[in-house]
Amino acid sequence: MAAPLIGKLVIFGVGLIGGSFALALKRSAAVGSVVGIGRGRANLDVARAQGIADRTYTIDEAWHGELQDADLVLLAAPVGQLPDLLSAIVAHLGPRTIVTDAGSTKQDVIAAARAQLGSAFARFVPGHPIAGTEHSGAMAAFDTLFRDRNVVLTPVAETLPAAVARVDACWKACGGVISLLDPARHDALFAAVSHLPHALAFALVAELAVRPDARDYFRHAAGGFRDFTRLASSHPEMWRDICVANRVALRAELDAYRAQLARIDRMLADADGDALATLFAAARNARNTWIAGRDGGTEE
Amino acid sequence: MAAPLIGKLVIFGVGLIGGSFALALKRSAAVGSVVGIGRGRANLDVARAQGIADRTYTIDEAWHGELQDADLVLLAAPVGQLPDLLSAIVAHLGPRTIVTDAGSTKQDVIAAARAQLGSAFARFVPGHPIAGTEHSGAMAAFDTLFRDRNVVLTPVAETLPAAVARVDACWKACGGVISLLDPARHDALFAAVSHLPHALAFALVAELAVRPDARDYFRHAAGGFRDFTRLASSHPEMWRDICVANRVALRAELDAYRAQLARIDRMLADADGDALATLFAAARNARNTWIAGRDGGTEE
Repeated sequence: MAAPLIGKLVIFGVGLIGGSFALALKRSAAVGSVVGIGRGRANLDVARAQGIADRTYTIDEAWHGELQDADLVLLAAPVGQLPDLLSAIVAHLGPRTIVTDAGSTKQDVIAAARAQLGSAFARFVPGHPIAGTEHSGAMAAFDTLFRDRNVVLTPVAETLPAAVARVDACWKACGGVISLLDPARHDALFAAVSHLPHALAFALVAELAVRPDARDYFRHAAGGFRDFTRLASSHPEMWRDICVANRVALRAELDAYRAQLARIDRMLADADGDALATLFAAARNARNTWIAGRDGGTEE
Repeated sequence: MAAPLIGKLVIFGVGLIGGSFALALKRSAAVGSVVGIGRGRANLDVARAQGIADRTYTIDEAWHGELQDADLVLLAAPVGQLPDLLSAIVAHLGPRTIVTDAGSTKQDVIAAARAQLGSAFARFVPGHPIAGTEHSGAMAAFDTLFRDRNVVLTPVAETLPAAVARVDACWKACGGVISLLDPARHDALFAAVSHLPHALAFALVAELAVRPDARDYFRHAAGGFRDFTRLASSHPEMWRDICVANRVALRAELDAYRAQLARIDRMLADADGDALATLFAAARNARNTWIAGRDGGTEE
């Protein structure tokens, strides 16, 4: 039997992403053993019961010796915790241990890794799997989460090609489709298509929820509201970290969006139905073209 | 065999809503015959082939004699067309014909009906079934569209209780759950939970679509973007009409939302993660409470 792609994997943050990565590698026999490290014991016990991790440690326990012979360390905690995690692991990494992450922002993570990892920074492969649900925790993990999903890697000049190749192979074993992007371009693109929509959905629900008659609004909300606000059921701490980490790009997108809303408000003030219909039709055409070009053209 | 609830139904606008209403009444044997009237012959032929309508006319054909013995006329065209439709039908209505509509706005439709219908205004029952998909046309119609869905009726002082009772019975036969609302309150509530989310989704997609590098953004958009923008695949003409008709309430909601976005922009500028996390958590809690209280608590 061939040796697995990864003999030993250590995951910090055994939630939806980290847990699904382990399950997918196990399913394809691409990993030998998995060590899970996290903040809460209850979630780690779930991770062990679900077959995600063979051994688990809370962050306060003595996990440090597990890194020396690890082939790969995946940092799958909220991005706000990555600087501290990088600082905590650097002294314990083995000489060939590759480190990667699953953070939704890349420039800030790369800056932290460059600052913390020293010579091991060449073995740090910045990554971002474009997958998720609004559920979180080890209980939400499943082995097909990354199947046919876009996984973006954003290596920099110092990153060892062999390290990129190993991480690329792992995500492919999970069923992912790899893209390479410049880190700044990554952060600008995802500010627009992911971070802004999350902020907009949280904004709408929070604004309604504080009204004295909020109950009346929610009582009449239906399927359109449910879809539009689905992102507002996402993990608040994770999205706080992403929004703060990528705030420069996110504010630029928010500015562009607020300018668009000002244009729409002007069309409404003028009762300019033609302008509204033109804008709505352009949006529908663009979205339908996009939908037709992905996932076999289905809405799911 | 008992006589059906409605002997003869005439539908103006044989699309998703009008077509599904006819199919649902037919399924429960609550209607005798159905006449469909619309703008395009092709869609009317679909409606006949689908069993929605027994006879069809384009709006330019001689449909006028069909109204005299109609028990119910449903106006299911975009709200912008209702004033002209009301004007076109008034001279041909029978003395007991009840008229109702399925428009997403109510104050403007009531004003048009009051202006056009004369003594028949007492038999006009303003209605709004809260159901739909982003698909349109007779081909999209199905007989369970209204099952367990909220159907709002907004009768005014002049409306005959017997007319309300008949329309109420029809929607119940379609599986709907009836609510009564004041028309102005209806328009304010739906501006917030339906019209604004539609406008916001159209706004986002249209803003991205005009960028020179739009392709890069759509290439990296994923499931969250798909859900958030689903409403942007809605019918542009229908939503133009709704937005123009309800522009006063919609602009008030847009103002409140823009103020919320200004607050979030300030939190981002200050890198105020605590304020963001508090807002995001409030949104998640409110949404999850709402989801838990409807549809058996499932996301569908």
